[in-house]
Amino acid sequence: MAKKIKVAILGASGYTGSELLRFLVNHPNVEINHLTADRSAGKELSAVLPVLKDIVDLKLHPLELNKIPKKTDFVFTALPHGTSANIVKHFYEKGIKVVDLGADFRISHNVYKKWYGKHPCPELIAKAVYGLPELHRIKIKKAKIIANPGCYPTSSTLPLAPLLKNNLIQQNTIIIDSKSGVSGAGRSAALDYNFCEVNEGLKAYKVGEHRHMPEITEVLAKYSGKRVALNFTPHLIPMDRGILSTIYVDLKKRMDTSDLISVYKKFYRREKFVRIISEGIYPSTHQVRGSNYCDIGCKVIPAQNKAIIVSVIDNLVKGASGQAVQNMNLMMGYPEDNGLNLAPVFP
Amino acid sequence: MAKKIKVAILGASGYTGSELLRFLVNHPNVEINHLTADRSAGKELSAVLPVLKDIVDLKLHPLELNKIPKKTDFVFTALPHGTSANIVKHFYEKGIKVVDLGADFRISHNVYKKWYGKHPCPELIAKAVYGLPELHRIKIKKAKIIANPGCYPTSSTLPLAPLLKNNLIQQNTIIIDSKSGVSGAGRSAALDYNFCEVNEGLKAYKVGEHRHMPEITEVLAKYSGKRVALNFTPHLIPMDRGILSTIYVDLKKRMDTSDLISVYKKFYRREKFVRIISEGIYPSTHQVRGSNYCDIGCKVIPAQNKAIIVSVIDNLVKGASGQAVQNMNLMMGYPEDNGLNLAPVFP
Amino acid sequence: MAKKIKVAILGASGYTGSELLRFLVNHPNVEINHLTADRSAGKELSAVLPVLKDIVDLKLHPLELNKIPKKTDFVFTALPHGTSANIVKHFYEKGIKVVDLGADFRISHNVYKKWYGKHPCPELIAKAVYGLPELHRIKIKKAKIIANPGCYPTSSTLPLAPLLKNNLIQQNTIIIDSKSGVSGAGRSAALDYNFCEVNEGLKAYKVGEHRHMPEITEVLAKYSGKRVALNFTPHLIPMDRGILSTIYVDLKKRMDTSDLISVYKKFYRREKFVRIISEGIYPSTHQVRGSNYCDIGCKVIPAQNKAIIVSVIDNLVKGASGQAVQNMNLMMGYPEDNGLNLAPVFP
Amino acid sequence: MAKKIKVAILGASGYTGSELLRFLVNHPNVEINHLTADRSAGKELSAVLPVLKDIVDLKLHPLELNKIPKKTDFVFTALPHGTSANIVKHFYEKGIKVVDLGADFRISHNVYKKWYGKHPCPELIAKAVYGLPELHRIKIKKAKIIANPGCYPTSSTLPLAPLLKNNLIQQNTIIIDSKSGVSGAGRSAALDYNFCEVNEGLKAYKVGEHRHMPEITEVLAKYSGKRVALNFTPHLIPMDRGILSTIYVDLKKRMDTSDLISVYKKFYRREKFVRIISEGIYPSTHQVRGSNYCDIGCKVIPAQNKAIIVSVIDNLVKGASGQAVQNMNLMMGYPEDNGLNLAPVFP
Repeated sequence: MAKKIKVAILGASGYTGSELLRFLVNHPNVEINHLTADRSAGKELSAVLPVLKDIVDLKLHPLELNKIPKKTDFVFTALPHGTSANIVKHFYEKGIKVVDLGADFRISHNVYKKWYGKHPCPELIAKAVYGLPELHRIKIKKAKIIANPGCYPTSSTLPLAPLLKNNLIQQNTIIIDSKSGVSGAGRSAALDYNFCEVNEGLKAYKVGEHRHMPEITEVLAKYSGKRVALNFTPHLIPMDRGILSTIYVDLKKRMDTSDLISVYKKFYRREKFVRIISEGIYPSTHQVRGSNYCDIGCKVIPAQNKAIIVSVIDNLVKGASGQAVQNMNLMMGYPEDNGLNLAPVFP
Repeated sequence: MAKKIKVAILGASGYTGSELLRFLVNHPNVEINHLTADRSAGKELSAVLPVLKDIVDLKLHPLELNKIPKKTDFVFTALPHGTSANIVKHFYEKGIKVVDLGADFRISHNVYKKWYGKHPCPELIAKAVYGLPELHRIKIKKAKIIANPGCYPTSSTLPLAPLLKNNLIQQNTIIIDSKSGVSGAGRSAALDYNFCEVNEGLKAYKVGEHRHMPEITEVLAKYSGKRVALNFTPHLIPMDRGILSTIYVDLKKRMDTSDLISVYKKFYRREKFVRIISEGIYPSTHQVRGSNYCDIGCKVIPAQNKAIIVSVIDNLVKGASGQAVQNMNLMMGYPEDNGLNLAPVFP
Repeated sequence: MAKKIKVAILGASGYTGSELLRFLVNHPNVEINHLTADRSAGKELSAVLPVLKDIVDLKLHPLELNKIPKKTDFVFTALPHGTSANIVKHFYEKGIKVVDLGADFRISHNVYKKWYGKHPCPELIAKAVYGLPELHRIKIKKAKIIANPGCYPTSSTLPLAPLLKNNLIQQNTIIIDSKSGVSGAGRSAALDYNFCEVNEGLKAYKVGEHRHMPEITEVLAKYSGKRVALNFTPHLIPMDRGILSTIYVDLKKRMDTSDLISVYKKFYRREKFVRIISEGIYPSTHQVRGSNYCDIGCKVIPAQNKAIIVSVIDNLVKGASGQAVQNMNLMMGYPEDNGLNLAPVFP
Repeated sequence: MAKKIKVAILGASGYTGSELLRFLVNHPNVEINHLTADRSAGKELSAVLPVLKDIVDLKLHPLELNKIPKKTDFVFTALPHGTSANIVKHFYEKGIKVVDLGADFRISHNVYKKWYGKHPCPELIAKAVYGLPELHRIKIKKAKIIANPGCYPTSSTLPLAPLLKNNLIQQNTIIIDSKSGVSGAGRSAALDYNFCEVNEGLKAYKVGEHRHMPEITEVLAKYSGKRVALNFTPHLIPMDRGILSTIYVDLKKRMDTSDLISVYKKFYRREKFVRIISEGIYPSTHQVRGSNYCDIGCKVIPAQNKAIIVSVIDNLVKGASGQAVQNMNLMMGYPEDNGLNLAPVFP
């Protein structure tokens, strides 16, 4: 049997923490050795996550760095934006690798200041690698700190990167119309996310003002070497999980749908977690629920020289915890899909 | 008490038929005198619509024109596309006014042929008036046949008409990203709409190929006197009712959000059923459910000279049966909101 | 046109307050003249209930008794349990009639103390009438204070009263298994009712300990003159509205399903808002949504001499605000269904 | 690496077939070698189950026994009731073990005739073992044919068996009030299960007449050696997965809740897939979704000498395909939880 590393999850009682545990309990190289959850500190994990009763029998600790076991080999931080930076620093200085599921290391300092406010340790931002394995695998393998991508950015960047890299689209007329399930809002008491306020309704929010917009823009610009301008509108959908992004782009040259599909198939030919859908079909969030897949379908409208691309992910998996485990696997030299070989759950 | 007209509903057992009844049972000028439903003919209405038990105590008849009572004053046809045209003709020739909730009279013959196939009585198309009261009120008042607009077209045309009419936007770069509840698919057995196939999932369908796209294009072109080209992507949302359309347009001149709101407020200042939402807020389908309102919010992105407009309707009301009653009111000279003065239902 | 009374709603921003407004805006005898909502005081009503934009253009006031307009004729209190008693007293002393939607006057003082704690003005309890019109119509007409019944009690008492009154069942083996939509929990921030905590799940809660159990017991005992013992288990269902109660009783004598249906039909033969369902069919909460109906179906199992009765109501209407309006109509001498003649909303 | 058996699934395109595949793709001892689906024969599996794209790349075959590969070692039949019996016979005669997910071998011939009609091969019924591992493990290990239990029976039998076996309850006053998600109705086109007919509603069905009632009765009677009479009412809940059964029993002797919990804990002390919940808490279907667990909570009402027991399962897993895999593991001598070590999925 493989030697197991000891893993701590800071912020274990929310949806991303819980989802990390779902993948890690069957990971052949991992032993969970410490969990924190400030508001529920002192309780058994199963008191706040009854799903994990008899599966993970650990207590929740307060978030105190000096109480984290010395022998911890790897840390996931699933904490509110702004609170993880100094914690990540602590582990960085000790030489312990971290995947940070928050936003603190995802974007450059200038952009961060504008959208999130003062950064607790800006000097560390340059040490972090943006953890989208399909685009940055080599860097991730050597990283000490991973900035795990946001859910909307994952669902937008994977379909757009091949088009920009191959210089196929106008880079300043991109429109991203994203639709997300409610778990993206996290696990906390808020009237806006109460069942009756969300169920059987549908709305746009933060139109042109969502903090994932600069993240998408910056990641795409860096990756493609182009100035990118885009328009991003998120919507809240009455379902638990899933993001579907409908992306509208202007093509630089004539192509038809099958050409575009070929571009995607070639670009992602070695990627297990990106599935390209056949012509005439468009993916549903159903088909990725609970799994680490990103499915992509598309259609070209020749008369307008436009393409419409539809991507789907599970926001809690490829959009958060699954991708975090994928990053850990790369950082630790494990097979990239260890712990992630679960088929999606339908219905 | 007002004299009541006798009204027949052909196709009363589906969602639009049922919704017509919900509004008409309290309409001061209407008496329901005949209901048809081919598959359920012979049954009591309440056997297929238990909601209406003790409210509408009528039998469902087969659709046989010679069995429709002679004294019928007004007819609603809520029948599958292609089947209502000849029935409408029958009443037209007898001088009985009709609102047709299907697509047979919504678009010009050439377009119809391309998208729906052979039309049963093309000569009648020119006699029909497109029943969007906010745009075509004067013609509707004199019409004998109303082509009741489709649900997506209603949700798209109301926000776009003022912009095109006022020459504020590029008419060939319009993108309409629409999201609809499941009742838009009608009431019939189909695996695609089974609960578990729809619930907790989200998908795009008929991308660039939906039959409401030419309807929207034609209506807007006629109304504005401009050639319009647009891109329309419908999505299926796991909820019963509601359409939200997110519309992306390129502005012809500089304006900010408050300017755009002023345009809408001015254009719809006398319209009871169109509500313009304040800056910084975007409407949810929640706030129109069960009612005849169309709510519109918007935002201008000055850096890109783009505007994003969000409209919401209840697809079964303003997108179908409520609008049909509004049209009947206009055709019969009744107050336009008779029977429609119901507040939306939330939650 | 009828002279209108001026009505105040104290606690207008929650679900029952909002639902009162939905019925009252079209009530021929009512003019809304004052609304309070402590947490949202100072805002426009439509800021917290966008559904009512352009329908009710009033501000929300803080709950200060001396600010309530002198000319107020009638008051609805939709306030947390324990807070309305003294407010009701204030109006009682001024001779202004009140319907209290809370629990403060529903049960006798001894029972109240045990389940809710100290009562602010126990001397007033005897002045209040329990507002279940189908059972207590005559007293309601003369009442100054109405204790509007709880939602579960309404759904349980209407099907059980005829059986106990007619001495048909064992009064100490009654089992009530109730299932409620989420709106019954009210409109406030609470993790337990967040979308993802409720959606796609199902649970029992407060098994044998819900405060509606003593209310049901007491109301049935008083009405039937019998000592009643029952077992009540509420469940939370992932839907907005609706309560379905499945009731198991032991019959005292042999009867079959049609006999039992006859008992119900006879008992409720003059009641507009109680509909008895035919043999072999059982009601769905669908068929009462948004309306003031209580539908009842049943089946006798002769081999076990047991009957199973299924009742459905909309918890916000017959279980709260609709019944409150029905009570107001009785107290004011209006037709009992004024404002309540809305067909249920399906789907 | 372990030698893998070749497994065929007959009826692979429905929800139970799909769910079998979800568990078997990661089963260390299984290789899927043949799939049938009559209506979709000739298609790729991923055309009807896009979730499994790139995970199971097999074609769907028509159900023809002579086309099933000779080297097949094990068969799951997930076929409509009445159609699997002769197919099971075919494999039985060839010495190939079968788990039948239908009802053909669950109940004795006399009971089958009454509730399902003529049985195609009654002589085989006695050869089959009822596959509830927690109660019949020893027999299952030696069985050639497993009748995989129904979903409602699994959710009812696990909580009732310990009480009857220990002679703690009256065996003729048992009431089972069950609530099921919609996937229990299978994957086929039917108006009754269309989204809008189910969503936001709740109903009882087949009250006292469901075919799982005699199955529960017979299984409990055989297991406990007692004549059992019970009352079973199923309800349809607007969610995909999950069954919650609320069970009301009369206790034979005085005990309190902690005594009852001790009975359960002792009875199931060696069972991985049955979790007993602490006093004061009741399980939600949330906490077992996607997993093979049955969670049980309970409360005693001493004044009435009654106990209320609440059990939850995922109807597609412990109520169908998970239990089928558990049975296969026992029949083949594999660790009982192989392939089933997945944590539940929440939210």
